[in-house]
Amino acid sequence: MTSASMPPATPATANATDSPVLDTARRAREAATVLAPLPRTARDGALLAIADALVERTAEITAANAEDIAKARETGTAEAIVDRLTLTPERVAAIAADVRDVVALPDPVGEVVRGSTLPNGLELRQVRVPLGVVGIIYEARPNVTVDAAALCLKSGNAVLLRGSSSAYASNRALVAVLRDAVASAGLPADAVQLVPGLSRDSVTELMTARGLVDVLIPRGGASLIRTVVEGSTVPVIETGTGNCHVYVDERADVDMAVDILVNAKAQRPSVCNAAETVLVHEGVADVFLPRALEALAAAGVTVHGDAAWQKAGADVVAATEEDWESEYLSYDIAAAVVPDLDAAVAHIRRYSSGHTEAIVTRDTAAARRFVSLVDSTAVMVNASTRFTDGSQFGFGAEIGISTQKLHARGPMGLPELTSTKYVVTGDGHVRG
Amino acid sequence: MTSASMPPATPATANATDSPVLDTARRAREAATVLAPLPRTARDGALLAIADALVERTAEITAANAEDIAKARETGTAEAIVDRLTLTPERVAAIAADVRDVVALPDPVGEVVRGSTLPNGLELRQVRVPLGVVGIIYEARPNVTVDAAALCLKSGNAVLLRGSSSAYASNRALVAVLRDAVASAGLPADAVQLVPGLSRDSVTELMTARGLVDVLIPRGGASLIRTVVEGSTVPVIETGTGNCHVYVDERADVDMAVDILVNAKAQRPSVCNAAETVLVHEGVADVFLPRALEALAAAGVTVHGDAAWQKAGADVVAATEEDWESEYLSYDIAAAVVPDLDAAVAHIRRYSSGHTEAIVTRDTAAARRFVSLVDSTAVMVNASTRFTDGSQFGFGAEIGISTQKLHARGPMGLPELTSTKYVVTGDGHVRG
Repeated sequence: MTSASMPPATPATANATDSPVLDTARRAREAATVLAPLPRTARDGALLAIADALVERTAEITAANAEDIAKARETGTAEAIVDRLTLTPERVAAIAADVRDVVALPDPVGEVVRGSTLPNGLELRQVRVPLGVVGIIYEARPNVTVDAAALCLKSGNAVLLRGSSSAYASNRALVAVLRDAVASAGLPADAVQLVPGLSRDSVTELMTARGLVDVLIPRGGASLIRTVVEGSTVPVIETGTGNCHVYVDERADVDMAVDILVNAKAQRPSVCNAAETVLVHEGVADVFLPRALEALAAAGVTVHGDAAWQKAGADVVAATEEDWESEYLSYDIAAAVVPDLDAAVAHIRRYSSGHTEAIVTRDTAAARRFVSLVDSTAVMVNASTRFTDGSQFGFGAEIGISTQKLHARGPMGLPELTSTKYVVTGDGHVRG
Repeated sequence: MTSASMPPATPATANATDSPVLDTARRAREAATVLAPLPRTARDGALLAIADALVERTAEITAANAEDIAKARETGTAEAIVDRLTLTPERVAAIAADVRDVVALPDPVGEVVRGSTLPNGLELRQVRVPLGVVGIIYEARPNVTVDAAALCLKSGNAVLLRGSSSAYASNRALVAVLRDAVASAGLPADAVQLVPGLSRDSVTELMTARGLVDVLIPRGGASLIRTVVEGSTVPVIETGTGNCHVYVDERADVDMAVDILVNAKAQRPSVCNAAETVLVHEGVADVFLPRALEALAAAGVTVHGDAAWQKAGADVVAATEEDWESEYLSYDIAAAVVPDLDAAVAHIRRYSSGHTEAIVTRDTAAARRFVSLVDSTAVMVNASTRFTDGSQFGFGAEIGISTQKLHARGPMGLPELTSTKYVVTGDGHVRG
């Protein structure tokens, strides 16, 4: 590892300020200017160099990772979290393979989104261009460091990575490898930078670096996301807390509804597209509730139910207002019986985080009404909420799932990491 | 005019709070929920009712307008501004005709942006949906009140209008007419509301009504836009200050360059897509500068030039740093000679507001390089900067020109007033 490739400990001399974070952002801005006009081959070349370097320098990466793991164990971190933090040679190889997958994705930059020849002969094209400098603030596993950098580079953006302190040594080692690889491919190393410092202040500086950072994408818990959304003057893309609902309609296929509910809740409860509440039409409750309770119990799920659910099952815990609001991310589900579809929609409007809601029904009119009235990122008809995912949607990879309405909504792939510009070509055209 | 249609002076009883602004936003949220699933015919019907009502109730509107005009004259407002404020029966008829033009535009709502059948048979569609509640904060003429409401209704959004105090009586009368017409077409009157109050506080409340307002679009001077961008927790779309540049390349057609420069500067200097700086390649300066100075003088334009321009023309004022930064919006232009195209690009990067830049050249390589390196909303090749405009681009109408990179960049038409949602249809699909 060359020391030049490490995130700088002191401000750069050019445009130096008192703030290492702003200096980092300034260097990212300059790198973005170099990246933007580069053709696909140059960006893909850097990504291939990254994939190779990750494999070649695995020992360095796992050694740094061992420091994080030791620290995590010292502070009594749960083994499940230690496991998520752990980088083995196999995991590093898988991360490198993911980078190669990104290389194979279509290039979003330069895509003509719309175009026409205007009545006066002007040729109008709206062309995708990189956003510029993308800041990612995340609490997740160290693989996010590489995934996010790869998606940003592929889309022609410079990236500022602000990971969690628990993965700091791993992230430092990974970013060093990425920077060397980027530089070896002839691109500016500053296209990939770790934000220096681990204090809250470094996040605050990033949030207010308007003009230097084009967008911030927070990925993590609800509190992190709220902090970034409320405190930023830089534009933010809010990502996904998921209080997702499954609505079982009067005319649902009951077998299908049970399968979808159990899959949506229990196939992987810790993720944002897992279901947190089930709403059941009263016309199907007598048949559905016993079946659902049996299947949920078999999957190890605790039901927090309303009066009807409590009556149907001895193990049902009484639901409180808090249950309707909860993103459990665990083997728990809130459950209610509703008089009709519109009542289900009203419940969802009130409590949903706008991520994903599903209806199970054989009634086309009910499906159509539910799709039309529910204002969430994704609406599933006869399918599990678990499908809201960039990879499942065929986008190849995702940088997060946006639950806001501006710019991007739902899984964000490469096109969502771009803006556009209009290119207008004339032959001396002036306005009359 | 029925009093029920007037913007309420007191908070609504349902969900009443201490804040009339938040109550207004809450009613808009409810109206948006009703609007979102409506088919095109319902929204178009409301727009046609608005167009008819504006013509029928012209006397009411011009009477209210007369109050604003009288007040403007009392306070010594310049006649040019009084003229912009004035609504005559002809102008009201023109505004009504613009509403009919909006009716004729394609419906953005329900458009399938992308779609595919996934390998597992799930049918994926990404469908345009309204944003919800759109807040417009504007300082412009009262016609903006109707234009903005029409575009928001067409795209299925409820709108909160916060106009300037100088047009308050006019806006109140116009909104009363709009609300009655919307209600007569069977849609909720609260789809169109004037934000009560004229203090800065009412803007602040709007800016922080996260969850009730989906997006704020400030239209007006740089100070208003900065205030909204920096103080909002609601997502904002920044609209256009325009420090636009014309670069005359070494290989420019000089006649064409003079025509484009004069048109870009002087055809309508008060608008954001007017040119504010001209940069000239030194290789063409000897030929171009005298011709440009003559044409600009004939158009009544004062040149604020660097040393080369001062040498070329006796009337050239010495340019200061402030000139390169200025959005004059007047018959003034900053002017410099640069050693090459890259120096022009560097100047633009440093001083441009990212609105529109033009190159005049016969050299395809120069045009390609300029387009690739300039990071602005629109880049013109051999055409006037004045073409950056929703109507000129064929979008039919625009709600503003975004100079930010997220969500929308450039003239914003109807699609830019929408978000999308994913509709995923299966037949019992679960994740394995």
